[in-house]
Amino acid sequence: MEVFDALFGRRSIRKFTSQPITKEEVQRMLSAAMAAPSAGNAQPWRFVVVTERALLDTLHTVNPYTAMAKQAPLAIVVCADVNAEKYKNYWVQDCSAAMQNLLLAVHAMGLGAVWTGVHPVQERVAGFSTMFALPENIVPLGIAIIGHPDQSLPPHNEYDATKVHYNQW
Amino acid sequence: MEVFDALFGRRSIRKFTSQPITKEEVQRMLSAAMAAPSAGNAQPWRFVVVTERALLDTLHTVNPYTAMAKQAPLAIVVCADVNAEKYKNYWVQDCSAAMQNLLLAVHAMGLGAVWTGVHPVQERVAGFSTMFALPENIVPLGIAIIGHPDQSLPPHNEYDATKVHYNQW
Repeated sequence: MEVFDALFGRRSIRKFTSQPITKEEVQRMLSAAMAAPSAGNAQPWRFVVVTERALLDTLHTVNPYTAMAKQAPLAIVVCADVNAEKYKNYWVQDCSAAMQNLLLAVHAMGLGAVWTGVHPVQERVAGFSTMFALPENIVPLGIAIIGHPDQSLPPHNEYDATKVHYNQW
Repeated sequence: MEVFDALFGRRSIRKFTSQPITKEEVQRMLSAAMAAPSAGNAQPWRFVVVTERALLDTLHTVNPYTAMAKQAPLAIVVCADVNAEKYKNYWVQDCSAAMQNLLLAVHAMGLGAVWTGVHPVQERVAGFSTMFALPENIVPLGIAIIGHPDQSLPPHNEYDATKVHYNQW
């Protein structure tokens, strides 16, 4: 798939078929995530790959916007190891870039995903930390719910000239 | 360019030729940035396109890591309008996803860029706000220095299995 087709064609997919996702596909999307830039090249991202049905079915108890995980074969929690940072407090940016790479890779593979926020909502951070037994230095940024799409959304171009300023605001 | 070639081929480019970048190219990369996902689809991103030589030459006074802008024809400051948020404090994630889309588009167009951090270093935020006359509700996240590359870096695959956990940490 061509880059711009992926950039404009990636949409938030919330309906999935029951078709499973292979280990090779998971590794491919994680490779894309890990190719993101990071402050000082610290690469503080860490990942929890969620495939257990019981976990996917109860994700909504720690984040109410993840109910679609009940129909999905896969979710990936993008976390940061805050002890791995070279320049402090850039982990949100680093891990967001990794998440965006992951979403684009998912789309390019013919799969679909939706990014659901965890950080900075403290009760969600606490819920995910308990559910996935995260150590204290590991902070969950967000979760991608992933599967074979059972819905089709058209490409979008949101270009808005009023959001662009030249040299001075 | 194929998506995975862009994901693995995008590198931080810090050396540029003097060749200018067209308005059409700037609009194309900004369109890619604006196609990123955002919390509640609030699209809080705003952009300052920097082409004035005097500004590019003095960027290093507000961020010491932007000295390469003296050789670049273009920089884009990615900002957030924090008043445009639907869900509070997701703007860093939204604007980081937009920045990553922009970097991938730049690479796919045969150009090069480096993402340099502004937020959350408060003196940099203050310096950029003054230099670009940003209103109080506009926060600069980071800046991409962009140009025709005068260096060539090989594709990279940073996959690291020790960063991946399954179902439980």
